[in-house]
Amino acid sequence: MKASAPIGVFDSGIGGLTVVSALRMLLPEEDIIYFGDTARVPYGGRSPQTIERYSLEIANFLEAQGAKIIVVACNTASALAIPALESALSIPVIGVVDPGAAAAVASTRNRRVGIIGTRATIASGAYAKAIARLAPEVETVSQASPLLVPLIEEGLLDHSVTFTMIRSYLEEPFARGIDTLVLGCTHYPLLKKTIAEVAGASVTLVDSATNCAQAVKNLLGEKNVLRAFRAEGEIANADRLRIVLTDRAGHFLPVAKATLGLHSKHMELCDLQTGELTEIPVD
Amino acid sequence: MKASAPIGVFDSGIGGLTVVSALRMLLPEEDIIYFGDTARVPYGGRSPQTIERYSLEIANFLEAQGAKIIVVACNTASALAIPALESALSIPVIGVVDPGAAAAVASTRNRRVGIIGTRATIASGAYAKAIARLAPEVETVSQASPLLVPLIEEGLLDHSVTFTMIRSYLEEPFARGIDTLVLGCTHYPLLKKTIAEVAGASVTLVDSATNCAQAVKNLLGEKNVLRAFRAEGEIANADRLRIVLTDRAGHFLPVAKATLGLHSKHMELCDLQTGELTEIPVD
Repeated sequence: MKASAPIGVFDSGIGGLTVVSALRMLLPEEDIIYFGDTARVPYGGRSPQTIERYSLEIANFLEAQGAKIIVVACNTASALAIPALESALSIPVIGVVDPGAAAAVASTRNRRVGIIGTRATIASGAYAKAIARLAPEVETVSQASPLLVPLIEEGLLDHSVTFTMIRSYLEEPFARGIDTLVLGCTHYPLLKKTIAEVAGASVTLVDSATNCAQAVKNLLGEKNVLRAFRAEGEIANADRLRIVLTDRAGHFLPVAKATLGLHSKHMELCDLQTGELTEIPVD
Repeated sequence: MKASAPIGVFDSGIGGLTVVSALRMLLPEEDIIYFGDTARVPYGGRSPQTIERYSLEIANFLEAQGAKIIVVACNTASALAIPALESALSIPVIGVVDPGAAAAVASTRNRRVGIIGTRATIASGAYAKAIARLAPEVETVSQASPLLVPLIEEGLLDHSVTFTMIRSYLEEPFARGIDTLVLGCTHYPLLKKTIAEVAGASVTLVDSATNCAQAVKNLLGEKNVLRAFRAEGEIANADRLRIVLTDRAGHFLPVAKATLGLHSKHMELCDLQTGELTEIPVD
């Protein structure tokens, strides 16, 4: 594991770019390969077996590309595939669930934490279990919010319909008096402002992307493989981010890149069955 | 091509069961194999190349299973993959686009037709082109309605949010004075009542599932391979429908089967890479 090697990040689609954006802020010197499985997105409604198989295919690809660490920037895959990835790979694996759970435990004052995510993430109980391991006395209220990803991908970030759905999803967690809400899906940071408006100032939002990036920084530091830091606050240039997709991205990639201020000079299409890579023109 | 052979029907997911339901009404004697690519649903946002590749994999599987005809019960695949399927297969292929276009042309009085569908279907222009071939004087107004599938899959069939989105999607087509609206997605028949309520009595809804089933009946009749009809109005039993999926279905399969009154005794999971089939218990 060399300090100069890239960080491998993957997600079922484009949403995991929120983790890339958080990594960019904390670790501007690092090279990043982002793998978005856009041909098979979304993972949220699929079976645990399928999610594990897809995650292994991608992580093997990233390891073969020389990644020094695998960041699972997908809550569904973090909830279901981390043990399989850890036993199959020889490099460290970090997901978004454990860092998010730790941040929620650190944040809550009244020991009541809400969790929103896709159906698969919520059904896995991964956040509730991770929180229970850290602080068994904390009560959790989990709520699947399956329409938020399609609403975000349509760019309806402050549409009335989005407010209606958020209010409906948060009704039960609010009734139970939560003071902390885990945004248990890497898409949700794009909707943070709207969720904050519905939640009000008394509820702290825990953004799994930011907490995951911090955990990556800590782990690379412990293992002494942080890439040398050149200048305080230096913003990484477009050469330092490679974006690999399994299908040509639709309208959501430009939206996400613009919202997150990400730039990349290298876009490739990957056929996971053959490992073949094809350059895609960058707009 | 034998009359006793099954009809092969495929869709990216569960939505194509609306076509199976329409086939059941018209052809209760026929055996049907339904293939839902639930591991890779939805196709609506994917590239034309990927949609063509997925469609070929599935159609080859259905032909190998002995199907006498392939019914593409997916508007996205019908819009993009029919020519490739026709040149690769030795059995006839029918999609949902041509029958829907013909029904729209027959229905419109003022020669203004609206079309709603997924992004990929609308971007392909398949309905507009098919209508232009049949009746060049008909004006078409196409509107991508990407949130309707997730709303249907969540069972929010008469939720206020669904009404809001339908009204928003239909604003432009209504402003252009359409008298006929093509439901260009096999999920949409499940939302027909709600769409009709928004559209009002002056707009005729063209249901591509029903028109596709009629076209299948006509073609099998012409080729003399309709299965012998035993009793008028006989309802096919659960033995006559095999459902093959690429991933264990989530919550939407029971919703769709109940809404459509479909019964199946045979559910299998298919690995398209190996062709392996595994029985799934039927609830």
